[in-house]
Amino acid sequence: MIFKRVTIVGPGLIGASMGMALRAKGLAEKVTGVGRRESSLNEAIRAGAIDMATLDLQEGVSNADLVVLATGVATSLRLGLQSLPHLKEGSILTDVASTKSFLINGLEDEIPAGVSYVSAHPMAGSEKKGASAGSPDLFQNALCLLTRTKATQPDAFQKIEHLWQKIGCRTREIDAAKHDILLAQISHLPHIVASCLVNLVSEDGMKLAAGGFKDTTRIASGDPEIWRDICLTNKECLTKAIRSYVSHLEDFEAKLLNQDAGGLEALLAGAKRKRDAFYTG
Amino acid sequence: MIFKRVTIVGPGLIGASMGMALRAKGLAEKVTGVGRRESSLNEAIRAGAIDMATLDLQEGVSNADLVVLATGVATSLRLGLQSLPHLKEGSILTDVASTKSFLINGLEDEIPAGVSYVSAHPMAGSEKKGASAGSPDLFQNALCLLTRTKATQPDAFQKIEHLWQKIGCRTREIDAAKHDILLAQISHLPHIVASCLVNLVSEDGMKLAAGGFKDTTRIASGDPEIWRDICLTNKECLTKAIRSYVSHLEDFEAKLLNQDAGGLEALLAGAKRKRDAFYTG
Repeated sequence: MIFKRVTIVGPGLIGASMGMALRAKGLAEKVTGVGRRESSLNEAIRAGAIDMATLDLQEGVSNADLVVLATGVATSLRLGLQSLPHLKEGSILTDVASTKSFLINGLEDEIPAGVSYVSAHPMAGSEKKGASAGSPDLFQNALCLLTRTKATQPDAFQKIEHLWQKIGCRTREIDAAKHDILLAQISHLPHIVASCLVNLVSEDGMKLAAGGFKDTTRIASGDPEIWRDICLTNKECLTKAIRSYVSHLEDFEAKLLNQDAGGLEALLAGAKRKRDAFYTG
Repeated sequence: MIFKRVTIVGPGLIGASMGMALRAKGLAEKVTGVGRRESSLNEAIRAGAIDMATLDLQEGVSNADLVVLATGVATSLRLGLQSLPHLKEGSILTDVASTKSFLINGLEDEIPAGVSYVSAHPMAGSEKKGASAGSPDLFQNALCLLTRTKATQPDAFQKIEHLWQKIGCRTREIDAAKHDILLAQISHLPHIVASCLVNLVSEDGMKLAAGGFKDTTRIASGDPEIWRDICLTNKECLTKAIRSYVSHLEDFEAKLLNQDAGGLEALLAGAKRKRDAFYTG
């Protein structure tokens, strides 16, 4: 047993899966869910993600040993700030957000003495949403990125690292700036790329589209509100990634217009080699 | 039995799978493979894709009732033109090419009297290559697009349509120009999109990349030579698709820079709705 009382603010797909995993592994004695709609909280209780629920943030967080911010990132900042005055001495605050600098910059200087804040990003998910789509195995073999803040005590960092490892993740420490640059490349830009691709294709095209297109665009079915906030809270890194990406496309286009067969093949072969080195299939 | 003698020019993944399916379904009495390397032809024989093999195009096609051009599209034009003087009266020429206008414009006026040319595009495949990766079931439930040329006799069209249906495909007729516009959107552009995404991501990023990135970039592992030719032979439609795609990205970027939360969410939600209407999962 690591934590007596854990409170999950926003027991949706990620938060609920975390609750299920904590309960399944005996890592928490009691898991409380805080939400803004009774129906979502009931869904989380039925799904076995939380033991009890409240609509009242203060009530939910004030006795917790661990508070997990598991809403979209913009909401996590707002509710995180609202929680701070009510966190108890010795408790740990954490999050599961997909962008780091925005949230950490907004929270770390406000953390009360005696409270530790450790940021985490378990890289698992699905296009589905809500507690009923959750699973205690969602994080099995996933990578969980951990980021220290100005308010991270070493023992709190270790506890959070241990927790994610027990839940099934590999963990890796990364600083907030690097996290946001890399995630813009491998997650946020790919989402925009997939969404723009779907928006470009005509209805006739959608009717013809085969397997490759389905795979390429899968992430475009993610939750629009969540992704809107991810984009807005990682604006600088994402804008830079889009700029760089457009340059890659324009380079390809120029080679195509010049009928530069060797240049086109080199770009395609380079991508294939790079991808094949990391993935099979 | 539809065809006594079928010759497959280029028994790679697609050609060999077609040979396997024709033999498995009893749609051909004898299947001959024509290739430029003995090793590939032996691979096709071992895989059960062809009954016999030759390096000599003239020998391979001169007695065939059906000749299938199954190489990359640029090579299909070259070998198609070389085959024409040797095709026998009453035979049918077909292809499996991913771009249509380039190949059909190059061939249809040269088809000898008494020979019919029907173009086909079975929309199935994989990132693997070669006969040993082939399967008689590759085309099960795939869509095969059929295109009439100036040299298509109605009965030849029906025979080719019937053949693909027997092999397990749904078939749909489409004209060459429309084919190339739609395939640029749903297949050729997505390939470039995936390749450029892989080329953009840093090595550190590749190490972190999770499932979404793997799916989004799967097609970037396709054969670079084949895809170079697809791009070059569909240059106009593909260039137009890249231009339009860059506009979509720049529109997104502008909304991001303006912190236009509503506009971003509308783009993301539109893509999600459109994709979800066509796919589950």
